[in-house]
Amino acid sequence: MPVFVSPQKILFQHCDPARIVFYPRYFEIVNAVVEQWFEEAVGVSFAQMHMVREEGVPTLKTEAYFPAPSRLGETLQFSLRVIRMGTSSVDLDIRAECEGEVRVEVKITLVHISNITGKSKPWPDDMRGPMMNFITE
Amino acid sequence: MPVFVSPQKILFQHCDPARIVFYPRYFEIVNAVVEQWFEEAVGVSFAQMHMVREEGVPTLKTEAYFPAPSRLGETLQFSLRVIRMGTSSVDLDIRAECEGEVRVEVKITLVHISNITGKSKPWPDDMRGPMMNFITE
Amino acid sequence: MPVFVSPQKILFQHCDPARIVFYPRYFEIVNAVVEQWFEEAVGVSFAQMHMVREEGVPTLKTEAYFPAPSRLGETLQFSLRVIRMGTSSVDLDIRAECEGEVRVEVKITLVHISNITGKSKPWPDDMRGPMMNFITE
Amino acid sequence: MPVFVSPQKILFQHCDPARIVFYPRYFEIVNAVVEQWFEEAVGVSFAQMHMVREEGVPTLKTEAYFPAPSRLGETLQFSLRVIRMGTSSVDLDIRAECEGEVRVEVKITLVHISNITGKSKPWPDDMRGPMMNFITE
Repeated sequence: MPVFVSPQKILFQHCDPARIVFYPRYFEIVNAVVEQWFEEAVGVSFAQMHMVREEGVPTLKTEAYFPAPSRLGETLQFSLRVIRMGTSSVDLDIRAECEGEVRVEVKITLVHISNITGKSKPWPDDMRGPMMNFITE
Repeated sequence: MPVFVSPQKILFQHCDPARIVFYPRYFEIVNAVVEQWFEEAVGVSFAQMHMVREEGVPTLKTEAYFPAPSRLGETLQFSLRVIRMGTSSVDLDIRAECEGEVRVEVKITLVHISNITGKSKPWPDDMRGPMMNFITE
Repeated sequence: MPVFVSPQKILFQHCDPARIVFYPRYFEIVNAVVEQWFEEAVGVSFAQMHMVREEGVPTLKTEAYFPAPSRLGETLQFSLRVIRMGTSSVDLDIRAECEGEVRVEVKITLVHISNITGKSKPWPDDMRGPMMNFITE
Repeated sequence: MPVFVSPQKILFQHCDPARIVFYPRYFEIVNAVVEQWFEEAVGVSFAQMHMVREEGVPTLKTEAYFPAPSRLGETLQFSLRVIRMGTSSVDLDIRAECEGEVRVEVKITLVHISNITGKSKPWPDDMRGPMMNFITE
């Protein structure tokens, strides 16, 4: 099944004075899911990328929709799919549900770059292969 | 000129191990600009909204594009325009430049809600009027 | 054994341009550990506290020592002990180790308050009992 | 007058579901004040330190006291003094007041290090001199 899933708990630090998730914190959680996917499913951790390979995957663009609020203490089920693989970029679809309700729908484009030149760099084969497993046709 | 401008300095806390702004921090900065606009230009602060009126303006959706990275110590010139006024929502265009280079382009849809019911609520006239001044035709 | 343990992974979002944990993020992680302790060991979650009981446990004071830096991708073993139980406060000792090295030593005083009056409020028996189990003599 | 002052506004992103400042955010604000002091008063910005000199000033330890809560929209007057200058460390006293009430009292020990070796490094004269101006006897 080409989906990576990750449960994420809504903590006090994610919530705002209206007692719902403050949306920049959703992007922190989304980033934690992406980071977990790279380490556990793609096989190259952010630590290896940044500290050994001198590479990174900054976010070039994102579209996000938050159809319903999330509250302190809830656990959201995040799922990640690959929509498109480019030479040195990837489009991810990440969404989160709780109690049958969609809370977050995010599309995100990451670019694989060299941290030394700051320029984009084709995905190496050891990353491309596992990433392809998550392509949703 | 229907533009609200706000310079924002890139602090240590905004930057990641690649020494560029971590994109969830951009949304924190964007929110600070929106908050400043409500207080200084619209005339109703987040404090009044949340603590007196029991209202809020959560983000329903956003589209963001980060064409070039920003670095520690840079000052970004943010500008905010209103693209569309709805009955109880507003679409904002927020962008940031530094040294003639666009760093951030964000479209964001805010919904005016009651914090008591959690439901949307038409903009009151004291807010709608000043917001209309920032509409870009 | 009167110790609550929680492994916490150092994520990209915790690290600064020097590629080590930015110390305010340690306090976010410490708060996540405290939150987990209240839910899993004390038996009253932050969600119940804030949204049902209208109570909270703000931090009155803290002392923290960071003898060695932590890096992206490391997993820190946090341990929490109760040093002192007051009528409406508690002193916690929270520390974190990685590979036999102490990374974080934090003492923290929480005060149990009513979110309505903002005043301190004695611990209810259902919380005091389980908290006492973590007292280190 | 050996005091560095900086007004800091309490933003939505600093506040928690109890509608007061979440204490890890105080450390973000304190860091912003320290960063501003280094740039404006000491004369060496964090950007220069990290990106040119390959140096940093991580926090070795801190003691903080939060005698009263701060709320959304308030402006806190931060003041910074030097308590002790060491060979490669400095103890700062940073406090914040609002409406005649003390909200934050923080002591913090920073260590000047080489980002390459990770080891402490004596303050260079161009930094030591201006820092000495803020010593409170």
